[in-house]
Amino acid sequence: MAGGAFRFVAFLSDFGWGDEFVGVCKGVIMEMAPGTVVLDISHDVPPGDVGAGAWVLAAAAPHFPPAVFLAVVDPGVGTVRRALCLRSARGSLLVGPDNGLLLPAAEALGGVVGAWGIENEALFRLPLSPTFHGRDLFAPVAARLAVGLAPEELGPALDPATLSPPPFGPAEVGSGWVRARVVASDRFGNLSLNCRWRDLERAGLLRGGRIGLVWRRGRILLRPARTFSEGPEREVLLIEDSRGGVQLSVNRGSARGLTGIGHSEEVLMEAVGEEEDP
Amino acid sequence: MAGGAFRFVAFLSDFGWGDEFVGVCKGVIMEMAPGTVVLDISHDVPPGDVGAGAWVLAAAAPHFPPAVFLAVVDPGVGTVRRALCLRSARGSLLVGPDNGLLLPAAEALGGVVGAWGIENEALFRLPLSPTFHGRDLFAPVAARLAVGLAPEELGPALDPATLSPPPFGPAEVGSGWVRARVVASDRFGNLSLNCRWRDLERAGLLRGGRIGLVWRRGRILLRPARTFSEGPEREVLLIEDSRGGVQLSVNRGSARGLTGIGHSEEVLMEAVGEEEDP
Amino acid sequence: MAGGAFRFVAFLSDFGWGDEFVGVCKGVIMEMAPGTVVLDISHDVPPGDVGAGAWVLAAAAPHFPPAVFLAVVDPGVGTVRRALCLRSARGSLLVGPDNGLLLPAAEALGGVVGAWGIENEALFRLPLSPTFHGRDLFAPVAARLAVGLAPEELGPALDPATLSPPPFGPAEVGSGWVRARVVASDRFGNLSLNCRWRDLERAGLLRGGRIGLVWRRGRILLRPARTFSEGPEREVLLIEDSRGGVQLSVNRGSARGLTGIGHSEEVLMEAVGEEEDP
Repeated sequence: MAGGAFRFVAFLSDFGWGDEFVGVCKGVIMEMAPGTVVLDISHDVPPGDVGAGAWVLAAAAPHFPPAVFLAVVDPGVGTVRRALCLRSARGSLLVGPDNGLLLPAAEALGGVVGAWGIENEALFRLPLSPTFHGRDLFAPVAARLAVGLAPEELGPALDPATLSPPPFGPAEVGSGWVRARVVASDRFGNLSLNCRWRDLERAGLLRGGRIGLVWRRGRILLRPARTFSEGPEREVLLIEDSRGGVQLSVNRGSARGLTGIGHSEEVLMEAVGEEEDP
Repeated sequence: MAGGAFRFVAFLSDFGWGDEFVGVCKGVIMEMAPGTVVLDISHDVPPGDVGAGAWVLAAAAPHFPPAVFLAVVDPGVGTVRRALCLRSARGSLLVGPDNGLLLPAAEALGGVVGAWGIENEALFRLPLSPTFHGRDLFAPVAARLAVGLAPEELGPALDPATLSPPPFGPAEVGSGWVRARVVASDRFGNLSLNCRWRDLERAGLLRGGRIGLVWRRGRILLRPARTFSEGPEREVLLIEDSRGGVQLSVNRGSARGLTGIGHSEEVLMEAVGEEEDP
Repeated sequence: MAGGAFRFVAFLSDFGWGDEFVGVCKGVIMEMAPGTVVLDISHDVPPGDVGAGAWVLAAAAPHFPPAVFLAVVDPGVGTVRRALCLRSARGSLLVGPDNGLLLPAAEALGGVVGAWGIENEALFRLPLSPTFHGRDLFAPVAARLAVGLAPEELGPALDPATLSPPPFGPAEVGSGWVRARVVASDRFGNLSLNCRWRDLERAGLLRGGRIGLVWRRGRILLRPARTFSEGPEREVLLIEDSRGGVQLSVNRGSARGLTGIGHSEEVLMEAVGEEEDP
């Protein structure tokens, strides 16, 4: 099966912009695939945070044209973790470590229809640095896939059931409650949860009754709203985000700052009776 | 009237680089206009700060080749604020919310020669997210304009007099004084004012006499200088910046740090008599 | 001698992304060389830190295809410091201030085979801003070189011996010790030293004995390791970095945070006897 060529490499990492890592990977890609266009998704994923990287990648991927997605959030670099290439149902390829980083994005692109371990050292920059597989392994492989290499050339086909699981599971949904987890927060202080707006509907939380938010250190009422700018200031809004997910926001303020809810923290949203003090 | 095509989309926002927003907008543009080159102006405008965004956009725009300028600093997203396309006298188009963000840049490009409301939903990604018009409205419209759509297709022509005013006005200039406002500061701690170097000339402040700077919490003498590196350290310099504007700077230091003058704060520059203690 | 054209301009600065400086330089390049691809190396070099900029540029340059390297970390802007173009043995050109910024990268590209002062004002954007040579001098010159201008057109050939020295020298290597300096640190808290892994070999430090790290405020034992993920947490590892250099790292932690060793600080690595307490 032919690989087909891609015009775009969409690149996500936790490298930050303070040193040369992002630029070096682009240089490597440009040397091997000079006609390719590299599009940055984000390089400010919190260092080593596979969950946040997976979340951002999955949110971005469906909005790109067919591409090779190059994703490097790789706290296990240099250990025995496998290097992966996935093919999604929509045709895009995803390249990165086998630590769950790629799976949510592959799902968002229609699901995994092929998986390969990257083992063919003829494709690497050798000697392989033990600390910078982005440069020596992932970027060269992404570049070669972009110019038409078939993923079958990378290494053995893998059973998708053997891949490392994604770093966050679905939320728990009950009758009158949803238990979720903060998977990302943005610079506006909005908190994104690992649940869908339709989970709230399924739990019966959006029928007009009051909704409480409970977390380790506090408890408040939430106000469902359509946008940030509805509702009084200093009140936490419950909003369907731009991906159909659920976001806690404050009008001209920060939900993170107001509640102190941190990254990865668990929260419970539950129906609150009229007479009950939240 | 034909739209004409543009090779470049120049993109400014307050999205930051920590999540997928910038990348998603680029993905949308690339899907609709794959031959276009997206140039980032800045995505680190302080969140929701229309004034700072307008300032940066106006400073950058005159140095670009003909382009579609896509600017999204949009605290009113999801409310009734209009979406705009402006045509500048030099031919470039500007796309963004009707909150004053685009006007200073349009002025810097020779003035507004056409304005349209963006209302044609056939051009949007639907359903329109109430919180992410960057992805669903502004980026698709910018992409279509880049490949030649005429702005007339976007919606009704608008009377420029009805547009939301720019977020900062001109400085006040008197005889021996200029009252201005801090509109931006950079990572070096330089403070940019909403006045022009020629305003200082017009006020008679540059004839060699002493110049005082007065603000809410302090008063000092300023030293006019040609560059950062003139003058002793820990002294606030008055410099013509790279746009003909006025900047307060400290040689190898931070004017923001030394004075404590904050964003949007008003300052008075005034002639100081020889015997008067500033 | 013909200049030859370049497809890529690789761009490094200390401008940050918070204002328009990076975007303006790209606009200038695109206006003059619209078919060129600008690749960002980093724009988050600490403000005015020529040493850190030189380090990042030298680390990145060997991984790029032939390019014009545009580097602007220029605390002396507006003073008499010269503007330079260097030609490297591998053919790439480097453009920037004569403050040592370019030399380590030119060495990494095989050495300097030509040097010119940039003095031909016909190539500048005039009037030259005293504070923004990136826009008015370096970016226009880089763009013209990219489209084939010969460096001989820029100004007089310079004797490489007259160039400002690089901002950091080599480490001192003795029998049983290496004295080095921190030249960069990344967002993971890894500390990069101005020495090579082979300097440690030459000093006899890698023969299996214990290695002490001594700095102004502390003294610890180092553990040589192949990757971050070896060794217990909260122990400082001595690692060959991805460039053959030496890095101090902590598994899932920060060497900078754990030791308090700061930028530019001197450290001594020395053999430690078995009975000696480090």
